[in-house]
Amino acid sequence: MYKRALSKGIFALSFPLAAMMGTAHAAAPEMSAEELERAGQIYFSRCAGCHGTLRKGATGPDLLPETTQELGQRRLESIITLGTEGGMNNFDGILDPDEIELISKYIQQTPEEPPEMSLSDIRDTWKILVPQEEWPTEPQHDRNWENFMVTILRDRGAMGIIDGDTKELVTEAETGYAVHVAKESSDGRFWYVQGRDGRLSKIDLWMDPPQVTAEVFIGIDARDVAVSHYGEWKDKYVIGGAYWPPHFVIADAETMEPLKVVSTRGYDTEGNYVHEARVAALYNTPNAPSWLVNVKETGQIWQVDYSDLENLRIDHIESAEFLHDGFFDPTGRYFQIAANFSNLMVFVDTETRKRVGMLNTGQIPHPGPGANWIDSECGPVAGTTHLGEGRMTFWGNDPEGHPDQAWEICGSVETDGPGLFVRSHPDSGNVWIDQAMHPESDVNQWVMVMDKETRELTPIHVADRPIEHDAVAVHMEYDQTGTEVWVSIWARGRGHQDDGAIVVYDDKTLEVKAVIENLNTPTGKFNVYNRKKHIG
Amino acid sequence: MYKRALSKGIFALSFPLAAMMGTAHAAAPEMSAEELERAGQIYFSRCAGCHGTLRKGATGPDLLPETTQELGQRRLESIITLGTEGGMNNFDGILDPDEIELISKYIQQTPEEPPEMSLSDIRDTWKILVPQEEWPTEPQHDRNWENFMVTILRDRGAMGIIDGDTKELVTEAETGYAVHVAKESSDGRFWYVQGRDGRLSKIDLWMDPPQVTAEVFIGIDARDVAVSHYGEWKDKYVIGGAYWPPHFVIADAETMEPLKVVSTRGYDTEGNYVHEARVAALYNTPNAPSWLVNVKETGQIWQVDYSDLENLRIDHIESAEFLHDGFFDPTGRYFQIAANFSNLMVFVDTETRKRVGMLNTGQIPHPGPGANWIDSECGPVAGTTHLGEGRMTFWGNDPEGHPDQAWEICGSVETDGPGLFVRSHPDSGNVWIDQAMHPESDVNQWVMVMDKETRELTPIHVADRPIEHDAVAVHMEYDQTGTEVWVSIWARGRGHQDDGAIVVYDDKTLEVKAVIENLNTPTGKFNVYNRKKHIG
Repeated sequence: MYKRALSKGIFALSFPLAAMMGTAHAAAPEMSAEELERAGQIYFSRCAGCHGTLRKGATGPDLLPETTQELGQRRLESIITLGTEGGMNNFDGILDPDEIELISKYIQQTPEEPPEMSLSDIRDTWKILVPQEEWPTEPQHDRNWENFMVTILRDRGAMGIIDGDTKELVTEAETGYAVHVAKESSDGRFWYVQGRDGRLSKIDLWMDPPQVTAEVFIGIDARDVAVSHYGEWKDKYVIGGAYWPPHFVIADAETMEPLKVVSTRGYDTEGNYVHEARVAALYNTPNAPSWLVNVKETGQIWQVDYSDLENLRIDHIESAEFLHDGFFDPTGRYFQIAANFSNLMVFVDTETRKRVGMLNTGQIPHPGPGANWIDSECGPVAGTTHLGEGRMTFWGNDPEGHPDQAWEICGSVETDGPGLFVRSHPDSGNVWIDQAMHPESDVNQWVMVMDKETRELTPIHVADRPIEHDAVAVHMEYDQTGTEVWVSIWARGRGHQDDGAIVVYDDKTLEVKAVIENLNTPTGKFNVYNRKKHIG
Repeated sequence: MYKRALSKGIFALSFPLAAMMGTAHAAAPEMSAEELERAGQIYFSRCAGCHGTLRKGATGPDLLPETTQELGQRRLESIITLGTEGGMNNFDGILDPDEIELISKYIQQTPEEPPEMSLSDIRDTWKILVPQEEWPTEPQHDRNWENFMVTILRDRGAMGIIDGDTKELVTEAETGYAVHVAKESSDGRFWYVQGRDGRLSKIDLWMDPPQVTAEVFIGIDARDVAVSHYGEWKDKYVIGGAYWPPHFVIADAETMEPLKVVSTRGYDTEGNYVHEARVAALYNTPNAPSWLVNVKETGQIWQVDYSDLENLRIDHIESAEFLHDGFFDPTGRYFQIAANFSNLMVFVDTETRKRVGMLNTGQIPHPGPGANWIDSECGPVAGTTHLGEGRMTFWGNDPEGHPDQAWEICGSVETDGPGLFVRSHPDSGNVWIDQAMHPESDVNQWVMVMDKETRELTPIHVADRPIEHDAVAVHMEYDQTGTEVWVSIWARGRGHQDDGAIVVYDDKTLEVKAVIENLNTPTGKFNVYNRKKHIG
């Protein structure tokens, strides 16, 4: 349309709005207001992550009326129930048949854009639950809090605080829904968790029991959080990143008062404008006063300097779509992140604030917390699992000591199925790899342990008793001593969410040391000591 | 709406789109498609600058149906015909009565959002008119091209190239509509001009006659352009800034091939999201490899580093709304820009890339190209005219030599009416001040000349013969020798656009030296030598 306007030398405003918004499809099934609201909630919690808030598609295809009405109600129900070979999960057993019918109707409607949020809107959601003057000056319990496992209880909307020494669930701290990740203050005492519903909560581990001291909603759909750890800005600011509105919010890390909001809308690497440019993941850079803000749909890694919020420096590092999650090398200088649908790992030098490499590692890399270790051939390496294939690939990441290997593939091992997470420890001879994305329980309830020296794999059946409902082994974390590995059994079947567990292994013998049972949908776990010391 | 969603902990998608887009107003007068298109063109060229492409308001109030239908057709026609005390121009004599009727109907309709433009859309508009291999290696004429006055012929859609020695109009180079400003290559040979219609053109002054060698549309509504002048990036890139889509485009300064597009959408200084965050003005920073991109509605000055386009550093310097136009101090280190509706001049240190001051100078400052000179009391100073009052205010701008005066008011002089431009020359004893914004011709056809030493004003009647139709004296520029001052007579009355002129004064005697007649709506003038040497 604008081409006609350009050719006339001025902009003609006369074309109809309908042509831009997409024609209203008369063929959409009728839904009541109640049904729309219920379906909207299901869409938000189960579908928006891959298909986008505006349903324009992201890692999953678009679900606009043109597409969905063409498929029709029966085909949509079948896809949602059974999944697809293209990577769509099956929701049989996760959603009721009537929920599947409802959501199939819903995605045939014209999408509606949710509102923006101003800084003052965000400020209105800010709550101090425990004022600063009531914070303890020393731990109020005798537990070894540095070996706490801060554990996401995904469908509970809570963080489980588990004592790593005694294996007891100390408390469940109420947070946002489906927390994606948790980040620590530099001493490990405070934990900041970002709920998918936008709720950013601060937990004090010194309290008895640990509890949330303050919270603020930084959006209506969000994923990640990071804390400023560098120099004089140590523990001064916290940043939360939203899917909607597409922006990040910088808050006071003490009080959680929101201070600044910055839009992430922009152009992707091909130069197309992205209205829904979502913040995928956030990291503090150990060697510079900055965070990395990874904008999923634009493939841009923004290094946001927090040393002066009023003259905010951002280096917009171009890479590839869609940015997902990443981790640092052991020096803290180099950042390694998946541009998952480009099959690339992207490498950033956070000191020069520039991209230094991109590497095709396999189908849809997904490292989670990642793993760094020393390979006998290549020297320092790091590895990633993949969503699209059963493979863990590792590359050299020591450009100073091993320039020839840097950002090049060192090797890869084939597992039995695609996975989400890889994890190791400098004192361990092992690299643990999950297979959580395989559809079959005789694969996804097993993890692989790779010997760093021989690169040989040992399969481990994490579910030590048959689990008949839908449950997968997912996410490994070492304890403070580096001798135990904790693996989650994420029971996600309807009615069985409380049957989750964490299985604790001896990293040397690969024997089960303990099973912590009756946990609601446990997924990611964060060991206080390892995380604050950047071990792994 | 989102507050309800927040309180429920998840986002409810069930509210109707109509509630967000504004209800369609049944009361809007009917218009045919032809009328809508014609009115849209008038709106774009006459109204959008102040009221916004989306009619949400900017420096002028919003023109949304809620507001305009309340006022009604008759009142709207009257406001447009007569203007308002709030600053709205009167359009009697500029628009026909039937155009005023049409536009009054138009602004009662629901506004429509124009489309976005991708980099490939922009690339599709790129045209090379004279290939590089055909460019001359030396000037093809014997004129003193360094004393050319590159002159905006506003309503012609052309730049007049006027020979400063002979006072002849050498040629009219066809460019975009209503060019706002022109910027030079570092040797002054090439001129880049940004049309309001988005057309960015490159003119070669060595050709005989000078002509456009390449062009590209960087948007559908645009204002400014700048060239990279620093270090190894000298004349490598050109940047164009758009009102719609709200973004800037970096192109190859040789070929005009578009290379990169960056959105300027974001949050204003109060933290409200701005969908129409327009690029007001662009400048190369003499002392750093960067441009200043001034985003009108967000009050953010973006210092955009062009030394690495793939890892684009931008320092987001917060100031105040609405950013308009600015100029450098004589050292090239400090940038001085009007945040006009905050009544502030804002000062930026382009070496530290931080704001160093803000100063209330009077009602709606507007410096245009600005003026720097030495004041006997304060040392180095700079001054601005104001749109809201007849006042030229000047401040100290030498923080090293005169720290007490820096960014503080040194003095001000009262003129007879609000003006657009102020200009001086280091070899001159004068500062020239126009009064173009006064509604009466016995003020706006006069300019004031301030004696730098005494601060006394001498009024000059620029129209040396009676001009009965609408015409104002506007914009002063020194010639290459610094002895002549050129003042435009901008005849803007319907049917009289070709009656414009430039009156050339002897800067010492204040006598008329020449009158260049029959120019179509001349406004801004850019002397090649002065601009490339940053004199003034």
